[in-house]
Amino acid sequence: MILAIDVGGTKMAAALVDADGIPQRAARVATPLDADAETLWKTLADLVEPLCGGVDGVGVGCGGPMTWPDGEVSPLNIPGWRGFPLRARLAARFPGIPVRIHNDAVCVAVAEHWQGAGRGSADMLGMVVSTGVGGGLILGGRLINGGTGNAGHIGHVVVAPDGGPPCGCGGHGCLEAVARGPALAAWALAHGWTPNSAGPDGRAEPYREDRAVTGRALAADALAGDEVAVAAMRRAGRALGIAIASATHLCDLDLVTIGGGLSQAGEPLFGPLEEALREHARMDFARRVKVTPASLGQEAGLVGAAALILAAESYQAP
Amino acid sequence: MILAIDVGGTKMAAALVDADGIPQRAARVATPLDADAETLWKTLADLVEPLCGGVDGVGVGCGGPMTWPDGEVSPLNIPGWRGFPLRARLAARFPGIPVRIHNDAVCVAVAEHWQGAGRGSADMLGMVVSTGVGGGLILGGRLINGGTGNAGHIGHVVVAPDGGPPCGCGGHGCLEAVARGPALAAWALAHGWTPNSAGPDGRAEPYREDRAVTGRALAADALAGDEVAVAAMRRAGRALGIAIASATHLCDLDLVTIGGGLSQAGEPLFGPLEEALREHARMDFARRVKVTPASLGQEAGLVGAAALILAAESYQAP
Repeated sequence: MILAIDVGGTKMAAALVDADGIPQRAARVATPLDADAETLWKTLADLVEPLCGGVDGVGVGCGGPMTWPDGEVSPLNIPGWRGFPLRARLAARFPGIPVRIHNDAVCVAVAEHWQGAGRGSADMLGMVVSTGVGGGLILGGRLINGGTGNAGHIGHVVVAPDGGPPCGCGGHGCLEAVARGPALAAWALAHGWTPNSAGPDGRAEPYREDRAVTGRALAADALAGDEVAVAAMRRAGRALGIAIASATHLCDLDLVTIGGGLSQAGEPLFGPLEEALREHARMDFARRVKVTPASLGQEAGLVGAAALILAAESYQAP
Repeated sequence: MILAIDVGGTKMAAALVDADGIPQRAARVATPLDADAETLWKTLADLVEPLCGGVDGVGVGCGGPMTWPDGEVSPLNIPGWRGFPLRARLAARFPGIPVRIHNDAVCVAVAEHWQGAGRGSADMLGMVVSTGVGGGLILGGRLINGGTGNAGHIGHVVVAPDGGPPCGCGGHGCLEAVARGPALAAWALAHGWTPNSAGPDGRAEPYREDRAVTGRALAADALAGDEVAVAAMRRAGRALGIAIASATHLCDLDLVTIGGGLSQAGEPLFGPLEEALREHARMDFARRVKVTPASLGQEAGLVGAAALILAAESYQAP
């Protein structure tokens, strides 16, 4: 059994994953807000404690950035960890077995390639489109790490060089600056969108100023026909299509999988995405590329983390 | 000894290359204009005939597109070859030894990594900026072929999605559409450039309407301070910088080498290139990327073709 761990800004998850990549026992806990480094560590240690028996290896996905493969993590959404030696702490807790770590978006890409929508692809980009836009690159059937573990950063491919929005990275016109959920929601609000999608109970949930609006709410309103929401999804879809065309030409991809919150946005996102992709991916070899929603859902990060150990011949990480 | 062959639209070159990658005997011939397939083949066969003794393998670089690894070639600039079975014909001529073929820009990238400006790089893009814009990708120290042999097509990364110029591929806003030499020269002429660079004998060579103007002439005028030529080089440099930033974020590159006619353009090209690159390559890991002119010159294609055989562990091609 492999202990798989997925650390994000809203939750920490862990599971025992069998050799077939199936999570057998899983647990999760909310990532404590405003916690210091040791409180965060104790939360994680307590989470995995019941899963520690008979473990042959530990695979970890964590929000970036991090040093790699050392795994000193500084997740953007977990301010309490800055240069926290997550891999070293886990290695001390689990002596004598491999402990490997990678960016959480890379783990999702690996999972989709190993067990999900990317099975059988030789050259794929696995994307996550959510609060951020990330990804992982599998070429010739093998995970491309990059010298610093950062290959796959499709979110910072430039899609709007002239006058594109500023990006959290310090640049401007990056795919992420246009297509991340919060940027889309902000764009839509600025263009007159009034969030009005159905709430979790199915009833219409009118907009309240104090409620955070998300890309997911925007996607729901676009599916319901809201004009500004449709325009926002079109903006994101075209940006995604342009970046995917560039990546396809550069890396000779056959498949792109899209996971994360916006992957469920349907035609309002995927229609304009396909339109822009086919407009720009015109070399003969690039026309074969397919774009498909990811298939593994929320457990993808855990499955991919386990694959760093269970399928190391394909997803090698030092 | 390896027989290396480099087939382009203006010349065919061949050489015997020793195990250290040094061309020992070389020959070249102008590619016959308007020749049919068999005339082109006979030209090549006659060229290599004096070099055939004691050859252990044949490596070939050829202008694309081609089927790969089969090597049925349809070079854009050699209309007489459309689906010509170049690798099969060479394999029949050289039975019992390996015959491998790749895109000519890939061969240049391989050569720069093996023997040139890219030595020691783990993750590099080797570019050729000339009549077209091409490249080859080496990640984790190994050539990335792509499923169809087309990885490295940096020329069709999108740098001007809105209102960018139409591209030969059928798309628009591609790097190649902006930065290829003929497109730059056309842009400069349309903006009032009067070519006036020194001729081969060092004397000023006034513009004649009947003389083809090239990116090289434009680069020379930019170095001499011509304002429109400087603006054209700036246009190309910024487009290159944007595309390189995108490639660096996606592939976690440490180095980009630039070969081809425009690689000698100096500060008027490389200044704006660096400016745009540093403006867009802002993720911490991306700041380490360096851009440098290629170092091998005209023989790079031959050296890289030989490497397909001599250093197959790094530059594997089936």
